Amino acid sequence: MQASLSSWRDGFLAVRNNKSFEMLVIAIILISALVIGATTYDIDSRWLQAIQVLDHAITIFFLIEIAIRMAAEKHILDFFKQGWNVFDFLIVTVSLVPIDDTDMVLLARLLRIFRVLRLISIVPELRVLMDALLKAIPRMGYVLVLMFIIFYIYGAMGSFLFESINPVLWGDVSISMLTLFRVSTFEDWTDVMYETMAVYPMSWTFYLTFIFLTTFVFMNMMIGIILEVMQAEHEKMSREEGTGEAGEVHWIKEHTREMEARLTRIETMLEQITKPK
Amino acid sequence: MQASLSSWRDGFLAVRNNKSFEMLVIAIILISALVIGATTYDIDSRWLQAIQVLDHAITIFFLIEIAIRMAAEKHILDFFKQGWNVFDFLIVTVSLVPIDDTDMVLLARLLRIFRVLRLISIVPELRVLMDALLKAIPRMGYVLVLMFIIFYIYGAMGSFLFESINPVLWGDVSISMLTLFRVSTFEDWTDVMYETMAVYPMSWTFYLTFIFLTTFVFMNMMIGIILEVMQAEHEKMSREEGTGEAGEVHWIKEHTREMEARLTRIETMLEQITKPK
Amino acid sequence: MQASLSSWRDGFLAVRNNKSFEMLVIAIILISALVIGATTYDIDSRWLQAIQVLDHAITIFFLIEIAIRMAAEKHILDFFKQGWNVFDFLIVTVSLVPIDDTDMVLLARLLRIFRVLRLISIVPELRVLMDALLKAIPRMGYVLVLMFIIFYIYGAMGSFLFESINPVLWGDVSISMLTLFRVSTFEDWTDVMYETMAVYPMSWTFYLTFIFLTTFVFMNMMIGIILEVMQAEHEKMSREEGTGEAGEVHWIKEHTREMEARLTRIETMLEQITKPK
Amino acid sequence: MQASLSSWRDGFLAVRNNKSFEMLVIAIILISALVIGATTYDIDSRWLQAIQVLDHAITIFFLIEIAIRMAAEKHILDFFKQGWNVFDFLIVTVSLVPIDDTDMVLLARLLRIFRVLRLISIVPELRVLMDALLKAIPRMGYVLVLMFIIFYIYGAMGSFLFESINPVLWGDVSISMLTLFRVSTFEDWTDVMYETMAVYPMSWTFYLTFIFLTTFVFMNMMIGIILEVMQAEHEKMSREEGTGEAGEVHWIKEHTREMEARLTRIETMLEQITKPK
Repeated sequence: MQASLSSWRDGFLAVRNNKSFEMLVIAIILISALVIGATTYDIDSRWLQAIQVLDHAITIFFLIEIAIRMAAEKHILDFFKQGWNVFDFLIVTVSLVPIDDTDMVLLARLLRIFRVLRLISIVPELRVLMDALLKAIPRMGYVLVLMFIIFYIYGAMGSFLFESINPVLWGDVSISMLTLFRVSTFEDWTDVMYETMAVYPMSWTFYLTFIFLTTFVFMNMMIGIILEVMQAEHEKMSREEGTGEAGEVHWIKEHTREMEARLTRIETMLEQITKPK
Repeated sequence: MQASLSSWRDGFLAVRNNKSFEMLVIAIILISALVIGATTYDIDSRWLQAIQVLDHAITIFFLIEIAIRMAAEKHILDFFKQGWNVFDFLIVTVSLVPIDDTDMVLLARLLRIFRVLRLISIVPELRVLMDALLKAIPRMGYVLVLMFIIFYIYGAMGSFLFESINPVLWGDVSISMLTLFRVSTFEDWTDVMYETMAVYPMSWTFYLTFIFLTTFVFMNMMIGIILEVMQAEHEKMSREEGTGEAGEVHWIKEHTREMEARLTRIETMLEQITKPK
Repeated sequence: MQASLSSWRDGFLAVRNNKSFEMLVIAIILISALVIGATTYDIDSRWLQAIQVLDHAITIFFLIEIAIRMAAEKHILDFFKQGWNVFDFLIVTVSLVPIDDTDMVLLARLLRIFRVLRLISIVPELRVLMDALLKAIPRMGYVLVLMFIIFYIYGAMGSFLFESINPVLWGDVSISMLTLFRVSTFEDWTDVMYETMAVYPMSWTFYLTFIFLTTFVFMNMMIGIILEVMQAEHEKMSREEGTGEAGEVHWIKEHTREMEARLTRIETMLEQITKPK
Repeated sequence: MQASLSSWRDGFLAVRNNKSFEMLVIAIILISALVIGATTYDIDSRWLQAIQVLDHAITIFFLIEIAIRMAAEKHILDFFKQGWNVFDFLIVTVSLVPIDDTDMVLLARLLRIFRVLRLISIVPELRVLMDALLKAIPRMGYVLVLMFIIFYIYGAMGSFLFESINPVLWGDVSISMLTLFRVSTFEDWTDVMYETMAVYPMSWTFYLTFIFLTTFVFMNMMIGIILEVMQAEHEKMSREEGTGEAGEVHWIKEHTREMEARLTRIETMLEQITKPK
C-alpha cells in the first residue's frame, strides 16, 4: 500500500518534471490567453459556445495539472511552501468562478485573464527575471516615500490655492495629487499651468519647482539603483575572483613569510659553518 | 541645584533618545499630515471644529517636543548647531500662525503643510537620502548655468522674432523662456512650432536646434553625475581595499627586497667556503 | 582558360577592394536616396523623366556592382555565405520591379527606398554599429515577453471594463493594447483616463499601476542591458590583461612554489653539513 | 622704444590676467544680457534711450577689452591661435552692426544676444564643460547617421503612402521627417496615427516599428557613450595606478626571477660541498 502510493508519487513526479508536459502546460496557457483575448471581439454565438466549451476544458486541465504537481510532493502541504506554487494555486482556484453566471460574468472573465501570469511561473527565465525585479523593490522604498511627501505637500498646496480656479483638477488633496502626477508626465501640463497663471501670475514657480524636484529625485533614484546593482555585481565578482588574483596574492604572501623564516635559518647555519673555521 | 538640573537634562535626553518617543513623534506628524489633507475636502462644520481642536493639540505637542529636545542639550544654543534642528524649529514656530484668523487662514494652512517635511528630519533613512541629494546639487551647478544661457539666448531670439506672431507665448524674454521650457518637455511643442512656421517657414530649425542642444547637454549632465558618483565610490572602495590585495602586494615587495639582500649574503658566504678550498 | 578566368577574378577582386570604387558606390547610393526623396516633391514632368532615366542608370549600376562582387568570389555561391551580401542582393533584385508600371508604381517606389539601407552594408563603421545593435536584441527578449504579458493582461481587462465607454479605444484586446501603448508614451493619456473615470471613479488605479509597472520594467531592462554590456567589457578587459597583472601574479605564484622547494633542499643539505660535524 | 613697447605689453598682460578685470568683464556681459532682455519688454521711450546709450558703452567696452587682450600678445596674430579668442572676436565685431538703423534693427538685436555666449569663453569652468561637450560630438557621429537613415526611409515611405491623406504632415520627404521627429517626441503622435489608420488600418505598424527602432537606437547610443566615457576614465586610472599595484607586481616578478637564479647557484655550490665529501 505504502509502496504503491510511493510509486504513484514517482509517476506524478516524472510527469511534472517531463519537458513535454511543461511544453503542454505552456501551450494550454497560451491557448487560454488567446481564448480570453477572443472574447473581447464581437463573435457570433456559435463560436462563443465553442469558446465556453474550451474554457471548461482549460479549467479542468489546470485543475488536473495542479493536482499532479501536488501529488508529486511528499506531503501535499509542501506544495504551498514555494511562493510560485501558491501563486499558481490561487490563479487556478480563483478562475473556477463560472463564466456562465450572468451576474458574475465580468468578474469571472477578469479573473481568467490572470491565467496569463502563469506563463511567468512556468517559464524559468521569466521567473528569474521576475525574482530580480522583486528584489529591486525594497531599494526603491525610501525614495518612493520621499516622492510621496513631495506629491502630498504640493497636492495640499495646490488644493488650497487653486481649488476655486478649477475644482475638477484641484478639488481635494487626492485629486490634486493625480493632477500633479499628470504634470510630472508632462501630459498637457501647460494647460493646467496657464489656467492658474490667469489668476496667480507667479504660479509657474509652483509647477517648475515641482517638475525640477520630482525629476531630480527620480534621476537620483535611477542612479542610486544602478550603483547598488553594480556594487552587488562587483562584490559577487570579487568573491568569485577570491580564488583568482586576490587569492593568489594572499597565497604568495603566506609563502613569502615561510621562505623568509627558512632563509634566516639557512643564514644562521652558514654563519656557524664559516665562523668557527 | 546644579545636580537636579543635570538629572533633569538626563531625563529629557532619555525621552529624546527613546524609540517609542520617536515613534510617537512620527505618528503625530502623520496625523498632522492627514489633518491638513482632510481640510481640503468639503466637510461639515462639526468635523471642522474637531479638526481645529486636533490642530491645537498637534501644535502644542510639537512645541513640547522641541522644548524637550532643546532641554536635552547642555546649552540651549547647541541645539541650533545642527542643520536639521534649525529646520525643525523653523517649521514648528512658523506654524504657530493661528488658523482661526480669517485674514491669514490661507497662509496658516500653507505653513502647516510643511510640517510633513519633519518626517524627513525624524526618519534617519530619509535624512541620509536627503543629505545625498543635497550633495548632488553643486555638481549640477555649472551645467545649470550653461542650460540657463541656452534658454536665455533662445528666449531673447524667440521674443524678437515671434512676438508679433503670438505675444502670449513670446511676449518678453521671461515668457519666451517659459514657452521654451514647455518645448523642452515636448508639451504640445508642435503647436508652437506650426504657428511660427506659418510666418517663418524655416523656424523649425529654431526648435530642432534648441531641442538637440538641451537634450544633448542634459544627457551629458546625467552621464557626468553618474561618472562622478562612480569615481567617488571607486575611491572609497580602493581606500578600504588598501588593507586588502594592494596592501598585501606592497608587503610582498618589501619582504622580497629583504630576502634578496639575505640571499646575496648567503651566496657570498658560500663562495667563501667553496673558493678557499 | 583556367588561368584567364582566375586573372579575370583577380581583376574583379581588385575593383571590389578598390577604395575609389567603394566611394563611387557610396556616392551612387546617396544619389539614389536623393532621387527617391525628389520624387516625393511636386516636380514637373520634364524633371520626372530625367529622374526615371537616372533611376534606370542606378539600377543597372547596382546590378553591375553586385555582379563584380560575385565574380570576385571563387564560387558564386560563396557570395551568399555573408549575411550582408544576401542583404545587398535582396535589396538590388527587389528594386528591379519597374517603376513605369502604373499598377505597381507605389510598391516599386517603396522598394527603392530600401536602397538607402545599402549605406549600412557598405560603410564599415555603420556595419560594426549595426552588428552591435543586433547583438543587443536577444538580451532584450525575455523582458519584451514580460512587457507583452503586462500589455495583454491590461489590454484584456481594459477591453472588458471600458468597451461600453469608448469602443474606439477599447473595442477589443488589440485596440486596447494600442491604447495602452499610447498611455505608456504619456500621449494624452489623461483624456483616456478622465473618460473612464466618469463611469468608474476608481479607474485611475488601472492607469497608475500600468504606468508604474511598465516604467519599472523598462527601467530595469535598461539597467540590465547596461550591466550586461559592462560585464562583457570587463571580461574582455580581464582576458586581455591576463598577460598583465593577473598573469604576472600567477607567474610569481608558480615560481614561489619552486623557490620554496629549492630552499627546502638547500636547508636539508646544510643540516647534513653541520650535524655530522 | 622697443623696451617701452614691451613694458606696455606687460601692462596689458597684467590687466588681462587681473582677477578684478575678469570680474568686470563678466559683470559687463551680464549687464549686456540684461539690456538685451530688457528690450523684449514694452518700455517707454525714455528708458529705451538710456538702453541705447548703455548699449554703445558696452560695445565700446568690449572693443577696448579685446584690444587689451590683443595687445597683451607678443604678435597680434597669436591672439587668433586660440579658438576661444576667435570666438570672442567674432561676437564682438559682429555686434558692431548699429542698432539705430531701422532696416537692420532685428539683425543687430539678434547678433547682440550672442554676447551672452562670451560668458562661456570667460568663465574657466564653463569653458572646460564646453570642451567636454564638444569632445562628445564625434562619438555620436555614426549613430546620428544611422538615425538619419531611419528617418529618411520612414520619411520617404510616409510621404509615398500618406501624402494623399494629409499633405500638411506628409507633403514631401522633409515635411515627413519633421512629422516623424514629432512622433519620436511622442507629441500628439496618436492624432497623426489615427488619421492614417482611417485609410490604412494596418498603418500602426509603421508608427510602432519606427518608435521601437528610434528608441532602441537612441538607448544604445546613450549606453555606448556611457561605456566609452567609462573606458576612457578606466584607462586614465590604470595609467595613473601603473606606479601603484600593477607596477609593484611587475617589480616583484623581475626580482623573483633574479632570486631564483641566485638560489640555483647556491644549490649548485652546496652540492659541490656535500658531494665530494
